[in-house]
Amino acid sequence: MLQDNHEAITRKIGLEFEVVKIGVKDASKERIAPSELFTCDLESIVNDPSIDVVLELVGGVDPAGNLVEQALLNGKHVVTANKELIAKQGSRLVHLAKSKGLDLHYEAAVGGGIPLIQPLKHQLAGNEVLKMMGILNGTTNYILTKMQQEGAEFGDVLKEAQAKGYAEADPTNDVDGFDTSYKIAILASIAFGKQVPMDGVYREGIRKITKLDIQYADLLGYCIKLLGVVEPVGTDRVLTRVHPTLIPKSHPLASVNGVYNALWLHGNFVGDVMFSGRGAGSDPTASAVVGDFIDVGRNIFGGGSGSAIPYDRGMLTSPISELRTSYYLRIQVTDRPKVLGVIATVFGDFSVSLAAMEMKTLEEGRGEIVFLTHPCQEQSFIDALAALQESGTVETVCNWFRVEGAP
Amino acid sequence: MLQDNHEAITRKIGLEFEVVKIGVKDASKERIAPSELFTCDLESIVNDPSIDVVLELVGGVDPAGNLVEQALLNGKHVVTANKELIAKQGSRLVHLAKSKGLDLHYEAAVGGGIPLIQPLKHQLAGNEVLKMMGILNGTTNYILTKMQQEGAEFGDVLKEAQAKGYAEADPTNDVDGFDTSYKIAILASIAFGKQVPMDGVYREGIRKITKLDIQYADLLGYCIKLLGVVEPVGTDRVLTRVHPTLIPKSHPLASVNGVYNALWLHGNFVGDVMFSGRGAGSDPTASAVVGDFIDVGRNIFGGGSGSAIPYDRGMLTSPISELRTSYYLRIQVTDRPKVLGVIATVFGDFSVSLAAMEMKTLEEGRGEIVFLTHPCQEQSFIDALAALQESGTVETVCNWFRVEGAP
Repeated sequence: MLQDNHEAITRKIGLEFEVVKIGVKDASKERIAPSELFTCDLESIVNDPSIDVVLELVGGVDPAGNLVEQALLNGKHVVTANKELIAKQGSRLVHLAKSKGLDLHYEAAVGGGIPLIQPLKHQLAGNEVLKMMGILNGTTNYILTKMQQEGAEFGDVLKEAQAKGYAEADPTNDVDGFDTSYKIAILASIAFGKQVPMDGVYREGIRKITKLDIQYADLLGYCIKLLGVVEPVGTDRVLTRVHPTLIPKSHPLASVNGVYNALWLHGNFVGDVMFSGRGAGSDPTASAVVGDFIDVGRNIFGGGSGSAIPYDRGMLTSPISELRTSYYLRIQVTDRPKVLGVIATVFGDFSVSLAAMEMKTLEEGRGEIVFLTHPCQEQSFIDALAALQESGTVETVCNWFRVEGAP
Repeated sequence: MLQDNHEAITRKIGLEFEVVKIGVKDASKERIAPSELFTCDLESIVNDPSIDVVLELVGGVDPAGNLVEQALLNGKHVVTANKELIAKQGSRLVHLAKSKGLDLHYEAAVGGGIPLIQPLKHQLAGNEVLKMMGILNGTTNYILTKMQQEGAEFGDVLKEAQAKGYAEADPTNDVDGFDTSYKIAILASIAFGKQVPMDGVYREGIRKITKLDIQYADLLGYCIKLLGVVEPVGTDRVLTRVHPTLIPKSHPLASVNGVYNALWLHGNFVGDVMFSGRGAGSDPTASAVVGDFIDVGRNIFGGGSGSAIPYDRGMLTSPISELRTSYYLRIQVTDRPKVLGVIATVFGDFSVSLAAMEMKTLEEGRGEIVFLTHPCQEQSFIDALAALQESGTVETVCNWFRVEGAP
């Protein structure tokens, strides 16, 4: 992503950047970045005085925790995707960063590419959070979705997910809810302002869910999801929990399927808000890490709040006639049998092809026809429509609309 | 909100704040804030040297534009909810703020309380945005949802919405798409880095949609929404448009109903992301304005990036036994007629009441029963379950789960 979107990232930071070193386990492996950048000596990165920003994507507490701490002690800003480290040591590390005037960002630690951490810290900060519920692990949501859609048992879907690379050989971290518990603990810590100790998070995985339970839940109007949930209890404590949960099919979280993640929250002023997207994978994670990196860059450059991000005037715009999309068209005709051929021919003349059709008889000899077209240029559709009206075969063009997201 | 959540807001800023003046049209009206704060002289606010931050909630370009400009020229940070002003003069005003080292935030201008502007500026900044589509106006989405759900015509639903206060007496700004066009122009300007001129935004409202079109769309598997859409065309221009649009019912935007708003976007690394929530109303707007105000306060206090927002250790946590929720329980029994009474009695003894039940006969004399309970204390449910097993009437407790969001 730093290579592919280099120009856009540089423009948004307002400053050129350079990748100095990349720490890996096996430096001899073939990779898309120049081989001279790779090193197995991770300490050499956090101790290199020429480096301003360290992106930590090692995962786990050891040795990542020491590397992050050393980087901060050496005056480097840090961006991390490490949920376990932040869940366990976030308070200490963020205080360390703050005391050194450094940035420590961890947007990628929860929800992959979905912006969750920063919106909770900033745009939603004025709310008292009354409840948060999240589908925060793609592997388990993939398994539960498959069990639901195919009536399959846990063990069979897990095997398939492992074969496809959606689940790891040792799936404990995902299916027993550890991953979700780190993530909901981080969100709870931000929303309620104190670090939630991991031994205060109730945790249960999805192994005990059978296809029979999913079918009964379905009968009752529910589906089963692995949720991370947090809510305040009384005035000074929170209940944080991870377990299989029935939610009504009408709940917005119920339609978050496959590897997608989502966070739903209820704040005392904002009401219900939901964020969803791809919660894992290298590209979404890169999106969040690079977003954080851009913020760090802006702060290094601007030395300030990074909030006034100006844009210049003068965006060039395209006219609607250049749009390429599908169209819905409703017309009334008198003599349907003959007319259909004429319509198809006229559309064909303007390279507009038809994707679907509905017809209804109105009264003696008259009928109403609705078309969906395949994607075409708006100008072609408009021209075809004009030709159709001139042809005299169409009684009334009742209405037409543009279509998005057609299969 | 500044009154209700005063303590939490102060804590998050790290600094005490005081409301100095409130500009209104009619200062004599009864209000919840002390009457001596109100003034009709808006100029006196932006020129008051004791004021650090101005929240502009006037709306429209005149006189709000001059007030915002004067506030910035006088060295005050500004938070605004003014979509028309930012859509038309955002580039100039943000440059002015930047040149004076001031914050100009406008999260509430688009999507009410849903965090959209800042996530686009920050967490998603590394992406090339390939498409954005938004339901950005609550009034029109309410009308279209009603038309869809009740098979009603536009005019009738509009009258009802006006009577309920969901639509204004002059509904032009909403139903003819002006409001949506300002909002999508702002989002487009941020995503593509240059201000999109309003005359480059194609705009069409919802007046021409009939219940018949909605029914045909439904037959074809679509629903009709007023969308703001922007996408890049070629390398140097964008196509920005607002019009009634058919989208497949399977698209996440299709299930955003009533006064809810949502933004869906596709970035080249993050993939699909969606944000949804209440897009209008005083409380969600307050949520966004106060979120921005907290950021301004943090920047005044910290003088820095506001990014390292520390939290202390030691959050107090509740055990899962204190949870109060509904439960799903699946059991196997041998003699159903007698057993049901026993189960109901045992549950009743522990104040667990039953909300729903499904039964299935397995084989001679044996059956499976599934219960949903009304909300109760987890400890009561666990105790009832133990008593049930001790009673000897239940053959097997097959499985149980917690339920969220039950009606």
